[in-house]
Amino acid sequence: MKKSTVSKNVIMRMPRYLQNLSRLYREGVTRISSSELGKRMGLTPSQIRQDFSCFGGFGQQGYGYNVESLRMEIASILGVYEGYSAILVGVGRIGQSLLEFFDFEHFGYKLRAAFDVRQELIGETLRGVPVLDFKELPEFVRANDIDVAVLTTSCDEASGVADALMESGIRGIWNFTECEVNPGDTGIVVENIHLPDSLLRLGYSVREAGAAREENGANPGSDSEHA
Amino acid sequence: MKKSTVSKNVIMRMPRYLQNLSRLYREGVTRISSSELGKRMGLTPSQIRQDFSCFGGFGQQGYGYNVESLRMEIASILGVYEGYSAILVGVGRIGQSLLEFFDFEHFGYKLRAAFDVRQELIGETLRGVPVLDFKELPEFVRANDIDVAVLTTSCDEASGVADALMESGIRGIWNFTECEVNPGDTGIVVENIHLPDSLLRLGYSVREAGAAREENGANPGSDSEHA
Repeated sequence: MKKSTVSKNVIMRMPRYLQNLSRLYREGVTRISSSELGKRMGLTPSQIRQDFSCFGGFGQQGYGYNVESLRMEIASILGVYEGYSAILVGVGRIGQSLLEFFDFEHFGYKLRAAFDVRQELIGETLRGVPVLDFKELPEFVRANDIDVAVLTTSCDEASGVADALMESGIRGIWNFTECEVNPGDTGIVVENIHLPDSLLRLGYSVREAGAAREENGANPGSDSEHA
Repeated sequence: MKKSTVSKNVIMRMPRYLQNLSRLYREGVTRISSSELGKRMGLTPSQIRQDFSCFGGFGQQGYGYNVESLRMEIASILGVYEGYSAILVGVGRIGQSLLEFFDFEHFGYKLRAAFDVRQELIGETLRGVPVLDFKELPEFVRANDIDVAVLTTSCDEASGVADALMESGIRGIWNFTECEVNPGDTGIVVENIHLPDSLLRLGYSVREAGAAREENGANPGSDSEHA
């Protein structure tokens, strides 16, 4: 596999491919052409062929792609079969919500424990996941060879908790806090979910689209002579 | 404002600027240089100056930026003061979680109602937000001049609901479903939150980082002669 040549944009799209192929697979589709897949995903066929070529192709010219094998290949590239183990740190509202609605197992992650400092939460079990004392985290990570931490503390706590996580030997952090987590040169991977950023971008785009519409509306003349 | 020249990457960073400036403001910081701000955010000073220049600058060479006015300027660009009104469609687990933990008001959005088809939910009030019958949606959107819909239905329902939303005159969709929402040429803005995609990218990067580490570890020779 040509690791170093895979661009960030291709990696951004890989999960989309996986999700769409999984859906096709559930729908009973066995083969799909790059143009059909492109139509579903709003991409051009050549874009799709180019993306897949980064990982050594997959398809046969003129025959389309085998949905199941392509799905499994991409899932494998994305580490779904790695058997990652995970913990969640910060059992506040976002943390509890994630425990409640997010299907970690479906994406290949085994959620082993959650951690918090609040005594009233420690000892609880939420959706089968035990809530442990944050003090026990380093030992737990080492003893259980934890790969990934879901960071759902407050912003103020994020940096200190991230430091503790990095020292404990974690390999990746899924950061839901509003604060930046800086992995420095630790080699630890940080993937951010900044919900407010997304909503703010939406607000920006809505405003811009409105401004563009107004400009176009006022285009032909200064008065409504065509009305 | 030079709208059309603002790159997607700059827009991606604007909410990060806002969040960091808001934090500085809360910490009582009144002025900040591009190099200090850069250190906080993992960006170079010239990157920051370049980003801000897209919106006509803000700072004075050698004096740094006024935190409060910069914060308000960026908030304004991001539409925080537009007074957007929003609805949420699909009061399942993600929808309920969002109602529970996400502070829409803080980002300038007034959440007016939630919609679902399930009779047992209709008539409830969740965190002050009434759950209405999905049938009433088009009328409600028109009568209340709703700007944005938060889409938290299942994937299967997403496309039909999105069509209904677009017809009703909504301006933007915040899409939490796993399915693509295609706005076509409606001019409606779609901003996606695909949580699984983010987790899958994390898994990919963790695997890649591990492979890179192994390669480096096995670098000097085939045997552990330096051990």
